[in-house]
Amino acid sequence: MRTTVAIIGAGPAGLLLARLLHRAGVDCVVLEARDRAYVERRQRAGMLEQGAADVLRECGAGDRLDREGLVHRGFELRFEGEAHRVDLPSLTGGRTVTLYPQTEVVKDLIALQLADGPPLLFGARVVAVEKTDGEQPLIRFVTEEPDGTDRTDGTDGTDGAEGPSGPAGPAGPERTLECEYVAGCDGSYGASRRALPPGAVRMHARTYPYSWLGILADVAPSSDELLLAGHERGFALHSMRTPALSRLYIQVPNGTSPGDWPDDRIWDELDVRLAAGGWRLQRGPVLTKSVSGLRSQVIEPMRHGRLLLAGDAAHIVPPSAAKGLNLAFGDVVTMARAFTHWHRSGSTSLIDRYSDNCLRRVWQAQAFSHEMTTLLHTPPGADAYDRAMQLTRLRRLTGPTAAAAELAENYAGAPLI
Amino acid sequence: MRTTVAIIGAGPAGLLLARLLHRAGVDCVVLEARDRAYVERRQRAGMLEQGAADVLRECGAGDRLDREGLVHRGFELRFEGEAHRVDLPSLTGGRTVTLYPQTEVVKDLIALQLADGPPLLFGARVVAVEKTDGEQPLIRFVTEEPDGTDRTDGTDGTDGAEGPSGPAGPAGPERTLECEYVAGCDGSYGASRRALPPGAVRMHARTYPYSWLGILADVAPSSDELLLAGHERGFALHSMRTPALSRLYIQVPNGTSPGDWPDDRIWDELDVRLAAGGWRLQRGPVLTKSVSGLRSQVIEPMRHGRLLLAGDAAHIVPPSAAKGLNLAFGDVVTMARAFTHWHRSGSTSLIDRYSDNCLRRVWQAQAFSHEMTTLLHTPPGADAYDRAMQLTRLRRLTGPTAAAAELAENYAGAPLI
Repeated sequence: MRTTVAIIGAGPAGLLLARLLHRAGVDCVVLEARDRAYVERRQRAGMLEQGAADVLRECGAGDRLDREGLVHRGFELRFEGEAHRVDLPSLTGGRTVTLYPQTEVVKDLIALQLADGPPLLFGARVVAVEKTDGEQPLIRFVTEEPDGTDRTDGTDGTDGAEGPSGPAGPAGPERTLECEYVAGCDGSYGASRRALPPGAVRMHARTYPYSWLGILADVAPSSDELLLAGHERGFALHSMRTPALSRLYIQVPNGTSPGDWPDDRIWDELDVRLAAGGWRLQRGPVLTKSVSGLRSQVIEPMRHGRLLLAGDAAHIVPPSAAKGLNLAFGDVVTMARAFTHWHRSGSTSLIDRYSDNCLRRVWQAQAFSHEMTTLLHTPPGADAYDRAMQLTRLRRLTGPTAAAAELAENYAGAPLI
Repeated sequence: MRTTVAIIGAGPAGLLLARLLHRAGVDCVVLEARDRAYVERRQRAGMLEQGAADVLRECGAGDRLDREGLVHRGFELRFEGEAHRVDLPSLTGGRTVTLYPQTEVVKDLIALQLADGPPLLFGARVVAVEKTDGEQPLIRFVTEEPDGTDRTDGTDGTDGAEGPSGPAGPAGPERTLECEYVAGCDGSYGASRRALPPGAVRMHARTYPYSWLGILADVAPSSDELLLAGHERGFALHSMRTPALSRLYIQVPNGTSPGDWPDDRIWDELDVRLAAGGWRLQRGPVLTKSVSGLRSQVIEPMRHGRLLLAGDAAHIVPPSAAKGLNLAFGDVVTMARAFTHWHRSGSTSLIDRYSDNCLRRVWQAQAFSHEMTTLLHTPPGADAYDRAMQLTRLRRLTGPTAAAAELAENYAGAPLI
């Protein structure tokens, strides 16, 4: 097989890239290790910045998003028993965000690609990415039968990462895909990262000293907007999957097992941390329960030779600011523009600047995600001074200050196009 | 002796308070442990927020300030070899700051007080502050002869603290001052803090893992405005005492001795850290050289019974944002308003709210000072991730963002009146 751009991974980054390249007339092939059913069940958070929603609309994937996506014009910061709403449009010149689960983005993009797009091979597990230093990279992959096991773990994968692959079904014969560029969109445990020669890139990494315990509950959300609590006992988040399903999180110590938290204990803790005035949190059956760590990663540069990384393959942000998906979209918009320019003009100038152009946005999202994380979480060993500083920052952000505008600008995000 | 408000300490806080109370018709007496010559030689930084300068003008101490003070309409952040100017008026709706050394503020206020103000006793060392829980506090003090030793150490006291008192001249007989309220304006090593019963207040404290090496140089400043550098090798600051004297600082490890840094080494390091384009730092004879630590302290509440603390007696900020003097002025403006209201109406409502009203501003200044400190200093053990996050924050602050407005608003300060 031959193509111009080989895309590894059919998550939202790889699929959007394929769509953008297809519309620009650049040949590509998408290789996805899992089967379609698995990919379409893989749950992730889904808060789209206005810029990310605009990109989907522009490439024809906005119909269901516009019908079913929940436009959020603000969110609440809760602390000391009070709710403080941050109004996005008034602070950002009219921008909003849209809650639309990542699974649905993936379904929409897969449907489009299978209807009229470039080849998308499911069950195509990449075993080697070779010759990325030369002019003609080569990808070796095996096509696997669907393994039949339901590996969906029910988490939102709020740390943006998919675990390492486990055993799969029987592998077919090895095949090859020759290409001119490789787009690594297969996450932080994927083949693209493994293909980087030792020392080729620098990896920055941080782990936070707390985790999130998340539940999906079969009850309508108790608020139309997200509620983020910076309680002395720790962070809590009220979010939603759909108008009928609530998604809730609490900060827990690293090493916590979901089994330590019976449902009632979780609800009780949510009541305490999210409390504000007469607001009531509605309880319902807990459908899933899981613990995930918070981490930051940045690979610098985001390119090695003819292998360009995007999304989780290049960087991980803690989920506190919901930037993972939006960053991935930013990467592939930049990458699609670079490949298109090269395809039309023969110039690699935008490809050469790909990493620098992305990293500015990536580091800004890292900084904002870090700020939101430390703003709302209580680190182990925090004392009264730490708490006073945290409350000071929270009060400043909820007053009529430029700090509030800065918060809203970062939350709503800058345009991608 | 009897008075209404006994003020301990004739630094800028105590002197301004005396002036404000005098103009409002509230009796007061100021007790200062040192002699006048010492107090008028005590060097400190002096960047006045517009609100602080306005207070001085309003109480008749603005003439020389307006003639000799250097109005600064901005400052520069320098990093990665480039200078980025932060323009205060355009970002804050017209506010500026004024460089006018604290020594000069003190001289102006002493001259006014000796001309027509309430009693100001120099060499009056407080040995006990008693009965602050009751209705009639009592201060015991001894009047000491000028000790003749020049204790001016030539530092700006950039950490806002005066060291503990050493031996003084022969003491006269003990005297007493009865009053209705005590204003503790005698710094972090003063009698007021020592008068707090154990457990009466909570003390928050932090020490930073680096210090400042400061020099005063007999050379005209190389820039009209302050230059703050966030270099990988550490913070540097170019400031000025007067149009003929430069004041310069570099971050050094804790435990550094000034003797480790010959003059040439300091200038060389300043050249490296402050470098930007073709800018040249002018060198000159080094008049003073000293090392001071960076620390944060907050006493909560700022009041115990009839003893109210103000300025360094209540809180210390690291010098990075030059907030110490401005915070002290904020405290005494709030205190003067409270005492005046009580004096006229008999109501203690504003006195009761004194601590809460001050602490909001104090914690905000703590948070901003902390942010400026971590933004510009390189902590021990910092790695490439830390540096990338720091540069990201710096770039955000120097772009056309709400973050830049927030920085300028905090730097210029809010009105005090």
